[in-house]
This record gives sequence, structure tokens and C-alpha cells, in this order.
Amino acid sequence: MTSVPPEADLRPDPAPAGTPPLRVALLGCGVVGSEVARLLLAQSADLDARIGRHLELVGIGVRRLRRDRPGIDPALFTTDVEALVSRADVDLVIEVIGGIEPARSLILTALGHGASVVTANKALLAADGSTLFAAAEKASADLYYEAAVAGAIPIIRPLRESLVGDEITSVIGIVNGTTNFILDKMDAEGAGFAETLTQAQDLGYAEADPTADVEGFDAAAKAAILASLAFHTRVTGADVYREGITEVTSSDIASAREIGCVVKLLAICQLSSPDDAAAERTVSVRVHPAMIPRSHPLASVGGAYNAVFVESRSAGRLMFYGPGAGGSPTASAVLGDLVTVARNRVRGAVGPGESSYAARPVTQIGSVLTRYHLSLEVADVAGVLASIAQVFAEHDVSIQTVRQNGRGAGAQLVIVTHRASDAALSATVESLRGLDAVREVTSVMRVEGE
Amino acid sequence: MTSVPPEADLRPDPAPAGTPPLRVALLGCGVVGSEVARLLLAQSADLDARIGRHLELVGIGVRRLRRDRPGIDPALFTTDVEALVSRADVDLVIEVIGGIEPARSLILTALGHGASVVTANKALLAADGSTLFAAAEKASADLYYEAAVAGAIPIIRPLRESLVGDEITSVIGIVNGTTNFILDKMDAEGAGFAETLTQAQDLGYAEADPTADVEGFDAAAKAAILASLAFHTRVTGADVYREGITEVTSSDIASAREIGCVVKLLAICQLSSPDDAAAERTVSVRVHPAMIPRSHPLASVGGAYNAVFVESRSAGRLMFYGPGAGGSPTASAVLGDLVTVARNRVRGAVGPGESSYAARPVTQIGSVLTRYHLSLEVADVAGVLASIAQVFAEHDVSIQTVRQNGRGAGAQLVIVTHRASDAALSATVESLRGLDAVREVTSVMRVEGE
Repeated sequence: MTSVPPEADLRPDPAPAGTPPLRVALLGCGVVGSEVARLLLAQSADLDARIGRHLELVGIGVRRLRRDRPGIDPALFTTDVEALVSRADVDLVIEVIGGIEPARSLILTALGHGASVVTANKALLAADGSTLFAAAEKASADLYYEAAVAGAIPIIRPLRESLVGDEITSVIGIVNGTTNFILDKMDAEGAGFAETLTQAQDLGYAEADPTADVEGFDAAAKAAILASLAFHTRVTGADVYREGITEVTSSDIASAREIGCVVKLLAICQLSSPDDAAAERTVSVRVHPAMIPRSHPLASVGGAYNAVFVESRSAGRLMFYGPGAGGSPTASAVLGDLVTVARNRVRGAVGPGESSYAARPVTQIGSVLTRYHLSLEVADVAGVLASIAQVFAEHDVSIQTVRQNGRGAGAQLVIVTHRASDAALSATVESLRGLDAVREVTSVMRVEGE
Repeated sequence: MTSVPPEADLRPDPAPAGTPPLRVALLGCGVVGSEVARLLLAQSADLDARIGRHLELVGIGVRRLRRDRPGIDPALFTTDVEALVSRADVDLVIEVIGGIEPARSLILTALGHGASVVTANKALLAADGSTLFAAAEKASADLYYEAAVAGAIPIIRPLRESLVGDEITSVIGIVNGTTNFILDKMDAEGAGFAETLTQAQDLGYAEADPTADVEGFDAAAKAAILASLAFHTRVTGADVYREGITEVTSSDIASAREIGCVVKLLAICQLSSPDDAAAERTVSVRVHPAMIPRSHPLASVGGAYNAVFVESRSAGRLMFYGPGAGGSPTASAVLGDLVTVARNRVRGAVGPGESSYAARPVTQIGSVLTRYHLSLEVADVAGVLASIAQVFAEHDVSIQTVRQNGRGAGAQLVIVTHRASDAALSATVESLRGLDAVREVTSVMRVEGE
């Protein structure tokens, strides 16, 4: 990585003399916000040249004034954020506060005053995106949010524009770096979830309160955003089925390894096939840990990296890969949006807005079909295989493979099913637990990928 | 892959009654053009809903009228292509003829009549993009070309918009599927170039005249387009240093394997570091075969797939991967552009145009620094290592590793250098060939990647 270029390298501002600048208000000055401010100032000449107009940072809204923000003029800071976004001369507002309120009210105020908005706020977009999109539409202003999903990886624009002439059938992403880091470490070291989480916290890869990450809320918000774009359908965080990784055991990871898989927390958005019997095509959107084959492109996405795998009817299989979080990557995405939105403003234009015309129904998890892996400790294999197979048959769950490890009292059965519904599988597991010969169901997990 | 949805699935056109349609002219009806036409008709309702206006295909320009184009109304075809692009009622023109002329004249005529243009024509953009961009700018019309590089992989928009607030320092791509297929097969089967080319031709992966692919012209055009976008600098195909794969031998591939590398034809666009002593930062743009470590993300890009690896200062390392050619993927990219350009037109807007403000000088290949791999057959290792090392030292080329295979008369030396200039390395090889003890220089190739 190179450092900031020397001043000599900065190009002159090509904007015609006398043209008023575009005025930018920044809301939030944490890890992302301070990097955005720093880059806005350090790269000013380049950004101006790309926009064709001078970009002027006129204020930074913060909760409290502090002194340790080197390189940024202290006069820019204000705690009166409401007044900042209400300024009539502000053209562009960057929101990197996060959370629902006051972010939503501030964005709505900014749009109401005609400013275009760039935000990284996945939680807000997933919870109430439609209110924001409607306000942007009404104001003829832009609302851009590339930084909300997968950090610096361009995924919003590819879905919203590059693939907009195609039919996207599936989007599968590793979109949460914290959980990917934890699962990776569990895989490499054979450790359990709790101790690995503690290590991740010590290393700064997990927050003191890790709930949003490890329970899958963060990934679910991103899944809602991706599904909305991919399927031209309004999907909220509440529509997303969500299982975190807190129940993933070292035994699950070992079981995955035995069948040539790794465990990943996946955000999965799928459009049902037109061949399915249903009268109407539906979408399923879910976040859960799953086993995927080590040969799958997503299997090798390690550590805090993110990747999104997209399948569409004409384009085929595409993958987007890169750093999923962090101040610099997220700031890169914010600034890409800022320049685009600023260019639009210079031309008196707005970019593509929300598209939810397809309005596909979102299916419930009970009817979603996936393959499952089960690992059972059984009393005596010779005697029980038939009764276990009978339980699967009764619930109409078809077995793809069975493998037996060991014999007699300590025997283990590893079963991978064909595609079955969550409802049928849950009922099967319930019945298996009732069999005398089944000592323990040690692992139940979905299997994704070819 | 799913098939075309049944008619029942198509949504009603949401455009207000009485709104005139956007009229589309298609130039070319080969592999890509016929797929574009088919999808335009089959997905009409969806495309209309996404645009908010009906898209009407009003004509298809072809060289000669034929009868074997099923599913497309024969009345649409015309050989009077000049008249088609001159129609005052045509809003959008798709150019998938390829080549310089008549494509250039037709695009200029279309822009001159105020139509926006979507093209997949990498050769034309690389040869004379600036004329086209100037015409689009003058006409306040769009010129989009996502399909020109790496088929369906969204790479133009990410470079032009998503990363426009960042400083891109390097773009390295596998952007030619034919050569990647050939090199892959040479690696897997140990076969030579000529026989593998014949196989690729038999399988339809290489053209009867394979020059554009195997001599690197196709990749060089794409490199020029990528470098222009990444560095905000006008780069033409003629600025790109180009070596094809016709000289790659099975011995090169075996040598690469010995040092844990694979041979790929790479399109490399690099911005010099601000730390380099030079007064001005420069760009280097080149296409040549190179050895890259098997652990590099590009190493596993197989067959006819493409991938582009981008490094930028804030975003870090990103990779984009997918099918690089073919009728359907290319048509997907064309239609993504078409919908975007149509949306712009509905809003009376144009997208971002050319940005070449940075105007970085393009360095000559002689001064580009890379690492090199050399494989030498030598007469007697004990006696010659000192004299060989002396030759490298005389040309100021620093050796990183030397390995000796075998001893005595059949001995082989494998040398990897530190970064050296093409000029210094060429002079070194020349001198080595003059040494009595060097029987043959069996392989000389650049080494890229960490």
C-alpha cells in the first residue's frame, strides 16, 4: 500500500472560476467518518477534477466536541447536527452515524432540504429503506449506499445497474467479517465458539457486545438490501430468516471437514425457479451457518474478507471479493458514491432509484428447500440404520449419503439428505431424538453449494 | 441455469398510457446481437418496468438478410444500416458489429443524431475512444461499454463509479478467455502451444484466425480501456506493450511449476509509486505472459473465465470474477448498459463521461521494473555460476534465487531476479547467450504477484 501523495502531486482544480462549490456535510466522525474527512481534504484536488466542481466540507456533526482529531479544522465540528443538515446551502450529506435514530430523521431532513445523501447505514436501510427511498424520490435527490454492504466491494452498483438487464437468480454472500474470522479460526484451531469469540474480541475483530455480528443481525440487514436490489422486491430485515453462529460447535466444524466442507455464515437470496409448480415465483432470504464444499469459490474467503457470489440467467456466475469492513475500505465506498452523486448534481440529474415493481412474495423458512447434514451418535449401527431410515422416509426426507464411523456402542452416523424443507427436517430430527438407539444428534446443519 | 420464464410471469408495463416508447436500433446480429435481440423481446415487460418506459426494438442492421434467425420478426432486419442510425426517432443504439469501420462512423452518426450508444467494441474504444467520447459529450448523449471488457463481469462501472473516490494503483486482469484456455491446457497436459491451439480451434475456443487472441491484441485493447478508467488518463491500444503467448513453451510452463507458479497472459496497468524518485507519477500498461504464484487469486482462474484484480489505496485488494465471453454473458452486459442509458434518458440525464484530467505519462516497457525467471542449460555448473553471476552484476540485475538441477554436462540453472528493467534484463540475456558455458537459455519470463 502506498501513502498519501505529496502536495506536488495534487492537480489544479479545473472548475471554472466563479462556479460555486458543492457543499458537503458529514454526519459522524468515528472510524469511518474520520477517514472520510481525511480523504476528502487530502484528495480534494483529484476529487474536484473528477467531479468538475469544487467539493467543500462545510461541517461535521458529532455527538460531542473532542480535541483528538488531527488534521481536521476544529471549526468544522458541531454538535447541532439538526441545524447542519437543515442548511439551505448544503448539497450533499454523508451519514456514517449508524443505527436507526437519529440517523433516519437526519437523512429525511437532509432530503427534505433537497440534499443528496450517501449513507453506509445497513441497519436503517434494511429496517425502513422504503421511507428513505420515497423521500429521495419526492425530493428528486440521490440516496446512495454502496458502503452499506460488503465494505469496499462494489456490489450495490453491479446489482442495481450492471445486471439490471438480466434476471438474477441467486446472491450468496459472506458479508460479515467478524463471524467469518471466528469460523475460520474454529476451523484452523479446532476450538469452540466461546473461546474463539473471546480471542476475536481481544484482537479487535469482534465488538465488546458481539450480538449484531454473531447472531446474524448485521448479515440479515445486508441480505435484505441485496435481495431488494436483486429481485426488484421490497425486503426488510424482518423478512429475513436468521440464525447466528453461537450454536456452531467444534463438532459441526469437524463434521463439515469430514465431508470436504467448511462452515460459513451465509447470506442467501434466491429466486424460485419458474419450473417450480407454484403459480408465482417467490424469493427466499436467509442468513444461517451452512456447510459448503471446499471447492466452492466462497470456501476460500478467509478472515475478515467478504465475497458475494451472484448467479444470473444470462451472465452466469460472478464473484466479487474484497475487504468487507474497516475505516479505509468503507471510506472508499462512501467517496465513490459521493463523487457519483456530486457528478449527478453538477449535471442536474439523479441516479436510479428504488425498483420494487416485481413485488415477489417472500417465502417462509419452513418451505425453503435445502440439503442437510446430520451427525448422530447411535447405540448399535447394525440394528438402527433401518429404523433411522424409516424416520426419514416417514417425513418424506430423502437420504443422499450415509456413512458409518466406528462400530457398536460408539458408532456415529453421518447423513446428508437431498433437498428437504426446514419443516420436514425439523420434524425428522425431533423423531430421531425419540429413538432409543439414537444417543445424541451431534450436528444438524444446512449444506449449500453444488 | 433456468430457462426463459413462461409468459404468465411477465409483468405488465407500468409506463403511463400515451408515453412514447424509447426506440432501440441494434447494429449487428451475430452471436451477441442475436442474443441481445432475443432477450430484448423475451424480457420486454421486465425491462420496461425497470426503465419506467416501453423499449421498442425498431430495427436490426445486418450485412445481409438471411432467413435463419428464429423468433425475430424478419421485418426488423435492414441492410441500410446508415439509414437506421440516422432515424430521428431512434433514442438508443446498440453496436455489436465490432472492428473499426463501419462501427465508428455508425456510432458517430448515431451520437450526431442525439441517440445514446451502448457498445461492446473494445478494438474501437482502444483505437479511437477519445473521438467517440468527445462526440458523446458534444451530443449530451451516453456512451456505455461494460461489455467491452471481461464479458459479463461488471468492471467498467466499478472503476468508473464505485472506485472514483479512491486512488487505484494497479489493475491486473485475465481478460482473454482463449489464451487462458490454451495456457490452462498446456499446464494440465504438458503439451506445446501449436498443438494446443489446434485443439482449442477444434473445440471452438479459438478462432480460425487466432491472431487477435494469441498475439495479445484483444487483451491489449482491454488493458488500454481499463488503464484509461483507472488512471483518468487517455491510453490507446498503441500505448500498450504487447507480447502474446505464441512463444510460450512447455518448458516455460514446466519451469513455472518448479517454482510454484502458473503461466497466465496478464493485462497489467500500474500507477508508479509516489515514493519513486521520478518527478511525475507515470502509468505502465502492458500485456504479456507471466508466471504468478499458485496462491495468487488470479492463478486459479481457469478455462474461459476472466478475472480482474484491482488494488487501490483505500479499498485495498478487490477481485471481480466471471465468464469473460460468449453470447449470453456479453448480452447481459449490453442490456445492463441499455437499461441504465434508457433510465438516464427518461430522466433527461447523462451518466459520467470520460475523465482524462490526470494525463499521466505512459512509460516505455524498457523502464518497467519486474522480476524475471530464467532457465539456462549450462555446460558445467561448478565452473560457470561465478561467470553467470558476473554477467547479472555487470547489468545491475540483482539475483533473488538460483537453483541448480542436475550436475555436469546436463545441468540446468533456474534463476529468479529481483525487480529489474526490461532493458537491463534483455541485455543480460544477450550477454548470457555469448557465454561459452551457457548452452541454451531455455526460458525467460516475467514473474508477477507477491
